[in-house]
Amino acid sequence: MTPITQLHPNGEAPPAERLPDSQPLYRQLADHYRRAIGSGVLRPGDRMPSMRAFMQRHGVSLATATESYRVLERDALIDARPRAGYFVRVPPAAGLPAAAEPDLAVPPGAAQFVGIHSVISSIVSTFQRYPDALNLGGATASPDLYPTEALQKAALRALRRRPTLLTAAGHDQGDPELRAVIARRALDAGIHIGADDLIMTHGGIEAVNLALRAVTQPGDTVAVESPCFFGLLQALESLGLRALEIPASPSTGLAIDALAFALQTHPDIKAVVAVPNLQNPLGTVMPDAHKARLVELCAQAGVALIEDDPYRELADAAQPPKSLKAWDTDGTVIHCTSFNKTLAPGMRVGWINGGRWHPRIGMLKFAQSRHNEQLSQVVLGEFLATNAYERHLRRLRDRLRIQRERMAAAIATSFPDGTRFTPPGGGMFFWIGLPRGTSSAALFEAALKEGIRIMPGTVFSNSGRFDHFIRLSCPSTDMDLADEAVRKLGRLAGRIAM
Amino acid sequence: MTPITQLHPNGEAPPAERLPDSQPLYRQLADHYRRAIGSGVLRPGDRMPSMRAFMQRHGVSLATATESYRVLERDALIDARPRAGYFVRVPPAAGLPAAAEPDLAVPPGAAQFVGIHSVISSIVSTFQRYPDALNLGGATASPDLYPTEALQKAALRALRRRPTLLTAAGHDQGDPELRAVIARRALDAGIHIGADDLIMTHGGIEAVNLALRAVTQPGDTVAVESPCFFGLLQALESLGLRALEIPASPSTGLAIDALAFALQTHPDIKAVVAVPNLQNPLGTVMPDAHKARLVELCAQAGVALIEDDPYRELADAAQPPKSLKAWDTDGTVIHCTSFNKTLAPGMRVGWINGGRWHPRIGMLKFAQSRHNEQLSQVVLGEFLATNAYERHLRRLRDRLRIQRERMAAAIATSFPDGTRFTPPGGGMFFWIGLPRGTSSAALFEAALKEGIRIMPGTVFSNSGRFDHFIRLSCPSTDMDLADEAVRKLGRLAGRIAM
Repeated sequence: MTPITQLHPNGEAPPAERLPDSQPLYRQLADHYRRAIGSGVLRPGDRMPSMRAFMQRHGVSLATATESYRVLERDALIDARPRAGYFVRVPPAAGLPAAAEPDLAVPPGAAQFVGIHSVISSIVSTFQRYPDALNLGGATASPDLYPTEALQKAALRALRRRPTLLTAAGHDQGDPELRAVIARRALDAGIHIGADDLIMTHGGIEAVNLALRAVTQPGDTVAVESPCFFGLLQALESLGLRALEIPASPSTGLAIDALAFALQTHPDIKAVVAVPNLQNPLGTVMPDAHKARLVELCAQAGVALIEDDPYRELADAAQPPKSLKAWDTDGTVIHCTSFNKTLAPGMRVGWINGGRWHPRIGMLKFAQSRHNEQLSQVVLGEFLATNAYERHLRRLRDRLRIQRERMAAAIATSFPDGTRFTPPGGGMFFWIGLPRGTSSAALFEAALKEGIRIMPGTVFSNSGRFDHFIRLSCPSTDMDLADEAVRKLGRLAGRIAM
Repeated sequence: MTPITQLHPNGEAPPAERLPDSQPLYRQLADHYRRAIGSGVLRPGDRMPSMRAFMQRHGVSLATATESYRVLERDALIDARPRAGYFVRVPPAAGLPAAAEPDLAVPPGAAQFVGIHSVISSIVSTFQRYPDALNLGGATASPDLYPTEALQKAALRALRRRPTLLTAAGHDQGDPELRAVIARRALDAGIHIGADDLIMTHGGIEAVNLALRAVTQPGDTVAVESPCFFGLLQALESLGLRALEIPASPSTGLAIDALAFALQTHPDIKAVVAVPNLQNPLGTVMPDAHKARLVELCAQAGVALIEDDPYRELADAAQPPKSLKAWDTDGTVIHCTSFNKTLAPGMRVGWINGGRWHPRIGMLKFAQSRHNEQLSQVVLGEFLATNAYERHLRRLRDRLRIQRERMAAAIATSFPDGTRFTPPGGGMFFWIGLPRGTSSAALFEAALKEGIRIMPGTVFSNSGRFDHFIRLSCPSTDMDLADEAVRKLGRLAGRIAM
C-alpha cells in the first residue's frame, strides 16, 4: 500500500504527521482523514471518496475501507447520505446564541378565549396567492422522504386481496389487525395496552379534538405550552375553550413548576395538553424526570393530561424517547398520535388511547365521524407488520438530520445579530427568535414576495409574545435551494430588524 | 307459429280466450302472459321463459320477444333481474293496514337533553354476541349490491397514475376535481353551487355534526323529526343539545304545521334537522310543496335548516326527488350528504354546503379533522365523471325494489293482526308498527336468539313513543333466507304481542 504519510485526502500533498504503526490500518486511515477535516483541508459538506476510490487509492480491502468510515461516522465527522455516498459532516451551528429560556418569575396571566382563527385565515389566504413559493412553513417532509413506492405497492396488494375494502363498512374502533400491530409497537414508547384500548381516528388532530371534548365543557380552561402548535389553539377556539399558556423551555419543554402554580391558582383547569417529544415549534424532547413529574402532577390534581405525540419517532437518539403515557398508572393520560408526520401525510390515520375517558371518547368518535376508511388502515397494518417501517424511519431520521445540519449552518451564518435559536435533536422544525421588535408578520410577507413561505410566530400563541419568532421547517430535499432561501431570509430579517 | 290459443305459459294447456287478430303479435303474446299471471297460473316470483325459450316456443323473432316483455315490464307484471332473467313481479304488500298518521293535535312536549347513547350501547353489545346473525338491522345494502369491482379497478388505476396519493397531503376543502364533479351533479338535486361552495367530510355524519356545531351552543334546542335516525340523536347528545321531537307523517314527512307551532312556542330552537328524501326510518319522500314550505318557514324564523340527504338517489321515481336546498334563496339550508348508502359503505366520503354558515363550517372542519384522504376522493372523482354511477344507481334501485317487494309480501302475510306499515317508495327500510304494547326490545332479543338482527324502535326517539316499532332493512341478496327470517320474525312478534 501507499504509505499514509504520502497521502493527501485528495491524493496530492502528504499530511504533516506520521501515525504510530501500532494502530490497526483502518484506524490509521480514519485518523488521516480526521486531521484533514480538522485542518480544513476537507470542508463541511465535501464529498468523501467513494468506497471503490478509497480502496484503490489506499490499496486496502473493502472491510478496511468500511471500518475506517464507520469510525469517522461514529465520531460524527462524516455522514452517509443514502444513495449519494459519504460527506464531511456539517457541524452544529455556531455563531448564534442558544434560544432564550422563558422568564418563569412572571405568573401566568388569565386564561383567555382563543382568537387565532382570523390570524391563521389571513396567513393562509396570503400564501395561497403564492402557490409556487418554496415551502419552509409546513409541518411534513417532502413526499420523496416518505416510502411512496412501498405504500403504493402495499395498497395495490391490499386492494387485490380484499376487493370489498371500498364497499364494505369497517369496524367501529378501526381495523382489528392494525390495532393489534399498533398495540405491539406501543411497547417501544413504554405503553402497555391491548388492541381494544385504542380507537383509530382521522389523523392525530381528530384524536386531540375528541380528547378535549371528552374532558371539557365550553368555557373551561385548558393549560397549553407556550409557544404551542397553532392547530391546538384552533381546536380550543372552535370548542369554545379558554387557553392558559404555560411557558415552555427550549431545553426541557413545559415548565412543570409554572404548571404546578397554575393548577393551584386556576381551579377551573380541566386538562393539560403537552407535546413531550420534539415539541412543535420548539423541537424539545422533555427529559424523563420531567415527564414523570408532569404525569404525577396531573394525576394528583385530577386533571386530564392530553399527550399529543406525533413526532416521537423522529428524535435522533439511540433509544427513541418514551411517551408520557409510559408513566401513567391511573388513566390520567390520554395518548394521541398519528402516522402523518412519520410515514404518510396523505393518509389520515391517527389513534387514541383515552385513559379513564376511553368509553366516552369511543362514543364521541362514533357520533362524530364513525369508523375510519378501511383501505388505508389495511395498507398501514401490512406495512407496520414487517420491518419496513423501522428501515424507513432510520432513513428518514438520517435525511432530516443532514438537512437540519445544513440549514442550521445557513441560519447561523446569515441571520442578523440578536437572533437566537437551538438546533433541535430531531424532527424538522427550527424555532428562531429574531432580534426583539422584528415583525415576523412583515418577514412572512416579504419572504413570500421572494418566493419563500415561512410560518410567523404570531400563530403559536394567543398572547402576541412570539411575534418576533418564526418557525422554519426543512422539508425540501433540494438543500441548495433551501440554503439559498435561508440566506435570503436572513438578509430580509436583517433589513426588517433595523 | 303455434296459435296463441293452444298455448299455456308452460307449454301445456291453452288459455281460455282467443285474442282479436288485429293486435300486433307482441301484444297478443304479452296479453297471453298477463292472463296467466292474473289467473295465478304463473305466481309471484316465478321465472319467466328465457328470451331463447320464448322465441323457440312461440316461433317469433328476438324483436317480438323483447317487445312482449317490455310491455309486461311497463305494466309492472314482470321484473328483469340483472344476469338472472325475467320474473313475475311480487305485488305490493296487501293484508296489513298502512302506517298510522301521527296525532297532530298533541302539542310538542318540552325540548329534552338526549339520553340515547346507553340504549344504543346496550343494543350494540347485545348483537355483538351474535356476530353470525342475519343482519336486517343495518343501514346499507350488502357489498354485492355495490360496484365492488369497478371501484377496485378505479382505485388501482388511481394509485398507478398518482403514486404519491398516500404520501402527499391533500387539499383542505377536498379534492378539487371531485368537488367540480359533485357540483355539476348537484344540479340534478336542484342545487346550484360551485366547487368552492362545498367541503368534503368524513361521511355524512361528520357533515351533520359540523352543521350542528356551526349553528348551536351546548344547551340549545334542535327540532328533529320523530321518529328520527338514532345517529342524529347521538350527535345531539354528544354535543349537549336538546331535542324537540316534531311528529313526522309516514306519507308526507315532517309535519310542517307542528313545526310552525313549535317555532312560535320555543324561541330557543336554533336549528331544524330533516331527512327530506326516504326519511330514516319512515322511508317517506316529502312532497315538493312541503319542501318549499319548510324552507320558507325556517328562513322566516331565521333558523338554520340542516338537510341530511344521503338516500335521495335511491328513490323509485322517473325523476329523482329534489333536495330542500333547491328551494333555498338566502343560505338558510345547510346541505349534508354522502356516498355511503348509494355507492360505497367502505369509503367515508361525504360533503357539505354550509349555506350562510359555510366559512364557519370550513374552520370547524379544519380544526376538527383536517382534509379527507386523497385516495378515495380521486377514485370517486373518476367513477362519477363517467356514466358508471348512473348505471350502478339504476341497477341498485331495481335490486332494492325487487327485494322490498318480496319482503313486503312476507311481512304482510306473517306479522300479527294489528301490525301496520307502508312499503316505502325506495331505499331499504321498513318501519313497522307492531300491535300496541308489543315490546320491540323483547322482539330484538328473541330474534337474535333465532339468528336475526333487527333494529328496535326504542332508538329512534328520546321519548319512548316508538317502543312498539321495529326498523327492518333488506340488505341481503339471498331473498329466500330473508323471507324465512321475516316469517320467523312475524311468528315471534305474534307471540310477544299476545
